[in-house]
Amino acid sequence: MKNSLKKIRETKPLVHHITNWVTIYDCANLTRAFGALPVMAHAPEESADMTKISAALVLNIGTLTLDIIESMLLSATAANEKEIPVVLDAVGVGATKFRDEMAAKILESVRIDVIKGNYSEIARLAGENARTKGVEATSIAADPVELAKELAKSKGCTVVMTGKEDIISDGEKTFLVRNGHELMGSIVGTGCMAASIIASFAAVNSDYCEAARDALCCFGIAGELAAETSNGPGSFKVKLYDEVFKLSEETVQARSNFEKV
Amino acid sequence: MKNSLKKIRETKPLVHHITNWVTIYDCANLTRAFGALPVMAHAPEESADMTKISAALVLNIGTLTLDIIESMLLSATAANEKEIPVVLDAVGVGATKFRDEMAAKILESVRIDVIKGNYSEIARLAGENARTKGVEATSIAADPVELAKELAKSKGCTVVMTGKEDIISDGEKTFLVRNGHELMGSIVGTGCMAASIIASFAAVNSDYCEAARDALCCFGIAGELAAETSNGPGSFKVKLYDEVFKLSEETVQARSNFEKV
Amino acid sequence: MKNSLKKIRETKPLVHHITNWVTIYDCANLTRAFGALPVMAHAPEESADMTKISAALVLNIGTLTLDIIESMLLSATAANEKEIPVVLDAVGVGATKFRDEMAAKILESVRIDVIKGNYSEIARLAGENARTKGVEATSIAADPVELAKELAKSKGCTVVMTGKEDIISDGEKTFLVRNGHELMGSIVGTGCMAASIIASFAAVNSDYCEAARDALCCFGIAGELAAETSNGPGSFKVKLYDEVFKLSEETVQARSNFEKV
Repeated sequence: MKNSLKKIRETKPLVHHITNWVTIYDCANLTRAFGALPVMAHAPEESADMTKISAALVLNIGTLTLDIIESMLLSATAANEKEIPVVLDAVGVGATKFRDEMAAKILESVRIDVIKGNYSEIARLAGENARTKGVEATSIAADPVELAKELAKSKGCTVVMTGKEDIISDGEKTFLVRNGHELMGSIVGTGCMAASIIASFAAVNSDYCEAARDALCCFGIAGELAAETSNGPGSFKVKLYDEVFKLSEETVQARSNFEKV
Repeated sequence: MKNSLKKIRETKPLVHHITNWVTIYDCANLTRAFGALPVMAHAPEESADMTKISAALVLNIGTLTLDIIESMLLSATAANEKEIPVVLDAVGVGATKFRDEMAAKILESVRIDVIKGNYSEIARLAGENARTKGVEATSIAADPVELAKELAKSKGCTVVMTGKEDIISDGEKTFLVRNGHELMGSIVGTGCMAASIIASFAAVNSDYCEAARDALCCFGIAGELAAETSNGPGSFKVKLYDEVFKLSEETVQARSNFEKV
Repeated sequence: MKNSLKKIRETKPLVHHITNWVTIYDCANLTRAFGALPVMAHAPEESADMTKISAALVLNIGTLTLDIIESMLLSATAANEKEIPVVLDAVGVGATKFRDEMAAKILESVRIDVIKGNYSEIARLAGENARTKGVEATSIAADPVELAKELAKSKGCTVVMTGKEDIISDGEKTFLVRNGHELMGSIVGTGCMAASIIASFAAVNSDYCEAARDALCCFGIAGELAAETSNGPGSFKVKLYDEVFKLSEETVQARSNFEKV
């Protein structure tokens, strides 16, 4: 794990988010609980400047508008120049034509280091005829591991498909992560939070494929621990924050459940 | 109750929200806790498309701006064509001229199936000289039951007035719901959450008056159960989510407290 | 303390916020937990009207955009005319040129009664060469107490610098507040919440310097009590809300830890 948790807590990387208005609160708080520093600045007049002092950038199109897309492109350009990781969370791709087009526009205009989405979002980005039910994945026809690999190769980046089993591939190496708990699906925004954590780990580990794998193991382990004493989504989320905050490298080593395929 | 809870959990209706930035987080999470799927897409370029794949639409004017109103009208028009229920939460009507005007514009431009508000918001919509203290109800002069009935008749829709006692009327039949707990008033957004739940129930029950009644009974019962072991608004909200998540049809049957008047 | 807590709970002052999209949820809920009524209305068409029925105004530039600045100026002008307190939370000043410029524009255009920020934000406003790491304070070269005093004198207002030790000065009198707990730094938005509480106390106490001191004592005491039984940031925030809600004047008298310097 390269002591990523320790590095995050010690260096407190600034993680700039241009994100949606639904889960912005959880993305900020979970980033903080992991030890990184979240910042959100979406005005086009400053978003690139904020990126220039940051260690990673998250672009989340969950409630995208045209002016937000403009700020995303400005920020990503600054991030590309500074060579800090850019994570795109393709929320709702496959649900509307606008999301498909805007995601495509971002991918054509700037370099994205990690593309993250659920199974149908990633399938859609890969050119499949997948439909997303709002922001909820639907089942897909193609083999997800092959999809992730192919998309990673064609875009030259890391691809993360989240679901019951997470798939992470940079085209060369591919990991399956099996940590996590079904209660994570009972709250809104675990997908968005995952993107924040991936960015936090990528800020301290230049192998973004490993960074994404480690981030999802850590988040999943915290979810497993939180679920042990939860009575539903309310208490689960409270405990999820507590478990993330006190997660130790030892626990991570002992409970990480991933496979290289 | 027509097994509405079961239907929501089984069919997972997509409930599209164009809503405010204060309680958007709770509206999404509570919709999810009830078993439905929330989605929020306010860009005019996609909001109607998102409505077209949804099962219900919530319009909440809590932090309205002119561009949001535009998206609301586009979405409501799509919902009207698709004949899915549209719930308008008239947050803050009676507080500023702009809110009064925008609520009136929405009601004139599209078909609203359920108008929801607190006592002074609904009184204002009904033409009374009521004033809302920000988003908090003030006492009203008129008889609230008569107000709700008359507004329902004149608009040809269901009217929901939330308060210590909730009043629901479609002009023909009128219900009083007495479930709930005073701690629900200690947190922000229970009114907004109620609109999300009404939309979720209306997605699976075409009698919107009954759907609203059932939604408020269920929400109120979860509030009563949560309050039993709460120490204040923090723990209350956590338990509210847990109770909503595990609410059973049996509990709802046993504890529903409504009257037809 | 002039029974400020009691006054807030009895008179329920309406506290208008034009604030950021990250912590708007917590600002609203914490204001409510203290007994005041939060309202957020950022449309330029209504924001001044909402201010006119309010008892205090909070301007928080955490996710500022040009249209939000316009509404802030309209609202602050209305607040100045009505002579209700205006609190400016200078979030992220020192991080980007745009924030520096917009904060300066607000301070030049309208009367601000309380300027609040962390150490580097206030240092930057005072003309020091301080840099803010996103919205996180960095260490500053100058003496913070002198900085606060001088800025208060030059602007003719109360200045609040939050940190391990809070500094509050109106240029004449200066207080150090030592209540609080380190877990308050583990969650996002305690700074923003502090501004909401200062506004709530200023709504019932025309000595804004004392109001800010009392607000920070109360918030800090609630944080100390919440920390006693917390396991991390999740449970801490839940308990913080509960402790704020049930905070008594007796507890405040017994635990307030401030010094006049």
